[in-house]
Amino acid sequence: MHSRILVVGAGAIGGFYGGKLAQAGCRVSVVSRSDYEVVKSEGIAVTSALGDFRFIPEKVIREVAEYGEPPDYILVGTKVVPETDTVKLIRPVVGPGTAIVLIQNGVEIEQPIAEAFPQNEIISGLAFIAVSRIGPGRIHHQAYGRLTLGLYPSGSSEKAARLAELLESTGVPAELTMDVVTARWRKLVWNAPFNPVSVLGGGVDTTMILGNPEAARLIRKVMEEVCLVAKATGHELPPTVIQENIDGTLAIKPYKTSMLLDFEAGRPMEVEAILGNGVRAARREGVAVPHMESLYALLLLADQKNRSKIC
Amino acid sequence: MHSRILVVGAGAIGGFYGGKLAQAGCRVSVVSRSDYEVVKSEGIAVTSALGDFRFIPEKVIREVAEYGEPPDYILVGTKVVPETDTVKLIRPVVGPGTAIVLIQNGVEIEQPIAEAFPQNEIISGLAFIAVSRIGPGRIHHQAYGRLTLGLYPSGSSEKAARLAELLESTGVPAELTMDVVTARWRKLVWNAPFNPVSVLGGGVDTTMILGNPEAARLIRKVMEEVCLVAKATGHELPPTVIQENIDGTLAIKPYKTSMLLDFEAGRPMEVEAILGNGVRAARREGVAVPHMESLYALLLLADQKNRSKIC
Repeated sequence: MHSRILVVGAGAIGGFYGGKLAQAGCRVSVVSRSDYEVVKSEGIAVTSALGDFRFIPEKVIREVAEYGEPPDYILVGTKVVPETDTVKLIRPVVGPGTAIVLIQNGVEIEQPIAEAFPQNEIISGLAFIAVSRIGPGRIHHQAYGRLTLGLYPSGSSEKAARLAELLESTGVPAELTMDVVTARWRKLVWNAPFNPVSVLGGGVDTTMILGNPEAARLIRKVMEEVCLVAKATGHELPPTVIQENIDGTLAIKPYKTSMLLDFEAGRPMEVEAILGNGVRAARREGVAVPHMESLYALLLLADQKNRSKIC
Repeated sequence: MHSRILVVGAGAIGGFYGGKLAQAGCRVSVVSRSDYEVVKSEGIAVTSALGDFRFIPEKVIREVAEYGEPPDYILVGTKVVPETDTVKLIRPVVGPGTAIVLIQNGVEIEQPIAEAFPQNEIISGLAFIAVSRIGPGRIHHQAYGRLTLGLYPSGSSEKAARLAELLESTGVPAELTMDVVTARWRKLVWNAPFNPVSVLGGGVDTTMILGNPEAARLIRKVMEEVCLVAKATGHELPPTVIQENIDGTLAIKPYKTSMLLDFEAGRPMEVEAILGNGVRAARREGVAVPHMESLYALLLLADQKNRSKIC
């Protein structure tokens, strides 16, 4: 009855959704290395627009292998960066009945997991949320929160539906999609231009970007390219998606992208999930994406330079 | 016999070439505002691979209008940035026989000057030099120094030839070209990719850029686009120019571009001369330049952000 859930990568995303699932009555444990002592003794304090709460995990462990009997769900909230080998990380605790839930950014991020665990259900999730870790065992949920869930590569499942219901019961909007891969491409329409341009433009918010006609043009060109690649991979997006994304961005307050926050904090950026995978898909399908390629090349340099600063 | 020359923008470029022309026997004066006191009392001290020297100008003035009778040459060494209105700056001292010498970066920078002074000879110059202002009245010439000179829009003149001879007499390689506009496009093959990428890639030198396969690919794509635009404007470049530029860059030590030095010092960058004019030429001629456009849009944002930092 009470699902057993292991959260891997108990950062902002894992901590928030894991905490909500605990609120919903699940037995939620977390793997935490850097914040182990704090989380073990005090849990995770979440300040949230949906109401503040404290998330006391069933178990707090340092290594996945300490968890014991495989859980019903593994919830992966880690960033998609080369230094995190998710397959290796979760392998010790994946059982025959374990569903692997990926709440991560980008496109074509599921394949390595699906190939490593061909018998397991992969639930792919997209979070539309502004949430950040503000200290050891402390998370601040600023806005939004909607989660889109679907079975990978397509369709739905009882486990995915159950997860959505549990989250909805705590006030988190959770919707099921029969085509999560298309949903990922759709989200990329925003992420592929705005995240890189915010960093490469010298650290600029959405209002500054769209206020410059050449930059606004670049944003639109990248969006068009994402739509072309999505279509070529069999996931055509509605023609209105570009204008909706532009209008939606103009309607909100100046917004700093998550990639810019990572960059400014000297953290690795999700270059491959947000751009590299899209560029490789384009090359595979024979679609010209010169604007995406330009951003990708520059972002690789900037990410490399950024990493060398903190070492 | 002894040419009267007024140097406007007595920064590194103007100070160096002005100083060499004084060595050659010319009567060289300089307009200097920020460094007026030092230059007035001590001249300009130049440390140089060609031999250190002190440049004592004939006159040091704060305003162009103080110069008196129009000179034989006005030597403009200012950066091409929106805040410098060269036409307005030099108008008070342009006489019927004054040749206007532009030693500046970029393409299509001569038109505004040629339109404002249709009766005057415009000598367009390209400096291949590493020289910098290291303090008030102090210039350091690190390497190179070659100047390519030609009459704008094409051909040569006695005044241009005389200038080249004078510089050659002091050890500065100076060559005349009958087609300076093509020479500008040729130099842009290097400048258009390397200058912007060095800034947008997070502050990287030429070795770091070419060491990344995606970035090296971007460099090459931008070079190809510059060649296409040059050709469309009637200035076709030899097909070997791209590989020569790549090989030449690989052969030198890691090099920080002048645009990166400007960016790091919080100074305005020559965005329009190096990219904007090329992009506008491409659009005028109907040539697709998506990589150049991507760099241009990002550089506009970065330049704007960089300027706001110092205000």
